[in-house]
Amino acid sequence: MSSPPTFADVQAAARRLNGIVVRTPLLENDRVNRRLGGRLFVKAECLQRTGSFKIRGAYNFLASLGDADRKRGVVGWSSGNHAQGLAEAARLMGVKATIVMPADAPALKVANTRASGAEIVLYDRVKESREEIGIGIAKETGATVVPPYDHPWILTGQGTVGLEIAEQAKALGVVLDAVAAPCSGGGLATGVALGVHGVSPSTVVHAGEPAGFDDMTRSLATGRKQRNEKLSGSICDALLAPEPGDLTFPLAQKVLGPGLVVTDEEVLDAMELAFRDFKVVVEPGGAVALAAALTGKLPVKGRSVAAICSGGNVDHATFARALERSAAA
Amino acid sequence: MSSPPTFADVQAAARRLNGIVVRTPLLENDRVNRRLGGRLFVKAECLQRTGSFKIRGAYNFLASLGDADRKRGVVGWSSGNHAQGLAEAARLMGVKATIVMPADAPALKVANTRASGAEIVLYDRVKESREEIGIGIAKETGATVVPPYDHPWILTGQGTVGLEIAEQAKALGVVLDAVAAPCSGGGLATGVALGVHGVSPSTVVHAGEPAGFDDMTRSLATGRKQRNEKLSGSICDALLAPEPGDLTFPLAQKVLGPGLVVTDEEVLDAMELAFRDFKVVVEPGGAVALAAALTGKLPVKGRSVAAICSGGNVDHATFARALERSAAA
Repeated sequence: MSSPPTFADVQAAARRLNGIVVRTPLLENDRVNRRLGGRLFVKAECLQRTGSFKIRGAYNFLASLGDADRKRGVVGWSSGNHAQGLAEAARLMGVKATIVMPADAPALKVANTRASGAEIVLYDRVKESREEIGIGIAKETGATVVPPYDHPWILTGQGTVGLEIAEQAKALGVVLDAVAAPCSGGGLATGVALGVHGVSPSTVVHAGEPAGFDDMTRSLATGRKQRNEKLSGSICDALLAPEPGDLTFPLAQKVLGPGLVVTDEEVLDAMELAFRDFKVVVEPGGAVALAAALTGKLPVKGRSVAAICSGGNVDHATFARALERSAAA
Repeated sequence: MSSPPTFADVQAAARRLNGIVVRTPLLENDRVNRRLGGRLFVKAECLQRTGSFKIRGAYNFLASLGDADRKRGVVGWSSGNHAQGLAEAARLMGVKATIVMPADAPALKVANTRASGAEIVLYDRVKESREEIGIGIAKETGATVVPPYDHPWILTGQGTVGLEIAEQAKALGVVLDAVAAPCSGGGLATGVALGVHGVSPSTVVHAGEPAGFDDMTRSLATGRKQRNEKLSGSICDALLAPEPGDLTFPLAQKVLGPGLVVTDEEVLDAMELAFRDFKVVVEPGGAVALAAALTGKLPVKGRSVAAICSGGNVDHATFARALERSAAA
């Protein structure tokens, strides 16, 4: 794949993932719809294997790799969800995986990655480069690097989320006005746009980001890749990539609408609503698109909108913080 | 329907509910399965409209009622989930609903019932009889009483949960050894048994109950209807019916295996695991079947077992209690 990935590549990924990943439900809530005056759908990727959408891209990558490469194993770096997705995809295919994880990643994510049989290498998010560590391991062992987002196989694997949303909405007789996806490096958002547009060309796809980590939103607005000033400091631990990818950014310029930026407080409110009304567990980074819809930054009134809740791997203490925001109830 | 309800009645209910209720997912978790040494499926009825399975029976009842009766409205009594299911089913069909609810029902359940447009009448769970109050309203207004469990239309509506489980397992190529359902009056458990056995006759269906409120378990063991000594005192607020129904008990004797009894502590542990591994919000009463599977009271090792998580309408404080039990993590 040297030309930019297309809808056909997303369809091919969907065939590889068929029977492996969960076709997660598109949830709807009568009370929430009445309150917003429109139809809000939640694509519950928190119910996916390993608790996030990341296994889709990882499995699609491993399934696309040659046998000889698979035998030498894979190495990846991740704040947690890509780690878990890659580790479990590797386990399912009998491939050895080494995962470079930040030392401050949620304990739950580290433990779960280990539970899939992967070898874990911890690093300091501020002082060390995960890329350097990962590439070093790859050179030493001959393992293939599985990047978290900036690769066609990853991007089109994640895009199957969008394909499913479009198919599920179509089955309900709904034409979606918009779909919003949480965005770190842009693999999910751009892949989803490819998947959605192949079925529903008029649907606008937006990337949602936490305030202070809105590199994609600013990059889209200015037409030039922008970096985040900080590398940590949001509860959205899954969305802290420093800048859009070399593959994802030019694609994002073609396929995405304007970015949506939400605060940590708005994210906690969205997690509380997901608990109360949708009965699903959503992690902070997984709730930014939902937060955008609930705050009106992505308007729902008089429209049909889908928000991807991309993961549910949240520590007990953080979830308890969201529960405390029940004043919104 | 004067003869006992059958699988054909569950199939007819499924046709009435088609497009109205959510075909809730049958979830599975790789880590949990590895730990238990078998396959444990969770039927996530917490993701159902109104947050529990109860809308199935209520909607089936209203859809089976004559037009003249529907015009006079309906009245029901419930600790909360039947209330919400009935109120929302009535709203969907444009029927006036009056709901008699215990004054100590979770605030969330009362608020949600009101949000569906039903009229609420509160009563004292210990000093007053909800049946008397409800029947009084029915006499006064000509409304039809919609009982929480002891009616063929209710029971067969709930039975569609079992039909779906059996169909979903079959699609996965799995023959279930057992299915466990939370049990209050027995409408869900007996209906589920009818639905499951029509597709998978060898599957044993069990009723799960909280300790101290194990009237069905003791009734099945002794062959005679047994009452609970207490009417309150478990966190499983949805499962406090005083005794099995006149319709459900003789049916339960024919279609159910032995009952399963779990403690409130085991229920909290199951809620925590549902949060951590399955990413769904389960209320205490909704978690008893899962608790039975996790504690080995319903063995999973070397088998394929489905636990119905029947509802997710839990207050923030109770859920926070479950989160605190992360020592199990």
